[in-house]
Amino acid sequence: MLPFYLDCDTGIDDALALAYLLAAPEARLLGIGTVSGNVAAATGAVNTLDLLRLAGRPEIPVAVGAHDFQARAFDGGAPHVHGANGIGGVALPKAEAAPLAESAAEMLVRLARENAGELRVLAIGPLTNIAEALRLEPRLPELVAEITIMGGAAMVPGNISPLAEANIGNDPEAAREVLASPWNIKLVPLDVTMSNVLEEEHRLELLASDSPLARALGEMLGYYYRFYEGIFGRACSAMHDPLAAAVAVDAVALRTAPVVHVEVDAGDGPGRGQTVCDLRGVHLGYPEQPGAHCQVVLELEEDFAPHLMAALLAPVPAASVPLAPVAAGA
Amino acid sequence: MLPFYLDCDTGIDDALALAYLLAAPEARLLGIGTVSGNVAAATGAVNTLDLLRLAGRPEIPVAVGAHDFQARAFDGGAPHVHGANGIGGVALPKAEAAPLAESAAEMLVRLARENAGELRVLAIGPLTNIAEALRLEPRLPELVAEITIMGGAAMVPGNISPLAEANIGNDPEAAREVLASPWNIKLVPLDVTMSNVLEEEHRLELLASDSPLARALGEMLGYYYRFYEGIFGRACSAMHDPLAAAVAVDAVALRTAPVVHVEVDAGDGPGRGQTVCDLRGVHLGYPEQPGAHCQVVLELEEDFAPHLMAALLAPVPAASVPLAPVAAGA
Repeated sequence: MLPFYLDCDTGIDDALALAYLLAAPEARLLGIGTVSGNVAAATGAVNTLDLLRLAGRPEIPVAVGAHDFQARAFDGGAPHVHGANGIGGVALPKAEAAPLAESAAEMLVRLARENAGELRVLAIGPLTNIAEALRLEPRLPELVAEITIMGGAAMVPGNISPLAEANIGNDPEAAREVLASPWNIKLVPLDVTMSNVLEEEHRLELLASDSPLARALGEMLGYYYRFYEGIFGRACSAMHDPLAAAVAVDAVALRTAPVVHVEVDAGDGPGRGQTVCDLRGVHLGYPEQPGAHCQVVLELEEDFAPHLMAALLAPVPAASVPLAPVAAGA
Repeated sequence: MLPFYLDCDTGIDDALALAYLLAAPEARLLGIGTVSGNVAAATGAVNTLDLLRLAGRPEIPVAVGAHDFQARAFDGGAPHVHGANGIGGVALPKAEAAPLAESAAEMLVRLARENAGELRVLAIGPLTNIAEALRLEPRLPELVAEITIMGGAAMVPGNISPLAEANIGNDPEAAREVLASPWNIKLVPLDVTMSNVLEEEHRLELLASDSPLARALGEMLGYYYRFYEGIFGRACSAMHDPLAAAVAVDAVALRTAPVVHVEVDAGDGPGRGQTVCDLRGVHLGYPEQPGAHCQVVLELEEDFAPHLMAALLAPVPAASVPLAPVAAGA
């Protein structure tokens, strides 16, 4: 099983990614760090701990990471997308566990040293913690087997500016540093996450599940779908973070995923926060680019929704703490 | 007939655009200005005059425009794409006419005043002359009915950097000024010009034509195809400039061409020279963007090649000067 560190800003689709990762037979989740993004890092940690309890995995440690971004203060996140509490207003049973004393960046560095050459990193929020960890431990790129990042937009529009996606655009300085570091990167941008959607039928399946976690996710999606109705014109949602999780555990076949040079625009122009992917080889099937170390996932072989649903509806491991019912309609 | 000013950097595909415009029943070409880009502005003027002679239209005036770009000196253009003389090494019979004494920008301003509210501008090179004309005559956007620009890349890779197309990327400062001015703009970017190609069969048809101009264009395309073989993997070419000419005369039906906010990145980051088009409405069919005045042509209703070939193979107007044979294989 692949040892994983997850960095997240939980967040509705982060919750889906966490549930996916907990169900994935390929993955062993060693620790989770939170960062501000969809919500404040501290709120994301509360949501993550509550989700871990609901999933029956309260032993997985959570560390709070950066509250502010490198170039600006956190400004409240995206309540219009994820709700004021980050999980669509759903009230989860409260976890008993608390975050660790170490920071998210410290946890990542510790896990990387303890699992040298094997640790996989899945980053589904702004890259502030990862950049901090690179400064704490410059050998991090050697210690980490690979890092999968949900973020960016290569040949499709951004979601917080015409070109910038939220995770990269919230902290372009951190993202530039992380993308420029010499490790194996899998980048999962809007190109693929916006072309794989969950529909209303999927949400109803989750709500009808025996699993309290699956039901809670279905409730959260009700909120998420309302935001995406303004984007897609129907009740549905993109699958940003869970798709990145599936890519991280190598559980989905990739149709188009060239390894190319990628640079983050951290300037002050109209392209601030965009991921500049050199995709000029498109007409020749993307010839090799010497020195490139970032695989940009543009297209999957198959629709992701059935795979995700199977994972979310799989029997959850026996809970190690008692579960309270999810507050209906909360 | 629509009165036109053409601004070009002739250039193999500029030659195709000129031939198209001369054949277009909708257009009346009043004057041509040249700018450095594919070749130096002065070389482009020589090529343009020679082409006009070959087309039997030596009375159309040509003015030489800017040699250098706003932020840097012209550095020799793109001989690897267009040949050292700009037209693939083809030796055309020499024109008798010489360029006018006025500059390209002065010609544009004069024609705009003489045809106030009616003049159409087709710009298929860097936008240096157009920006200069805007400074000479700040009312230019009111005097010009619309401007069609071949340039930029919206949701596809650039051709001189991962994001920048040559016309915009050669003079981003000028392009920023022109795109920000309040006139009706049609932008014809790589999105549509790279997805409409001329094939070897088309080149052979041109070579077999009775028209000296068509045969000369076929010879030029032999050179142009060699460059594009490295892009597409076969002997063929994009149709950048002639496609813009057809859009300018409203001769092709547009499938996807939203009117959106467009900004040129003239900063020093990795996005320098890109056209930042706000295409976030893609999933809803591009809702109206108040204040937007740039129509970005992303997709045609039909393949452009048959339309272009019909124009290029149409009988040319009676020549007003004797034609010398095109030097075979030159």
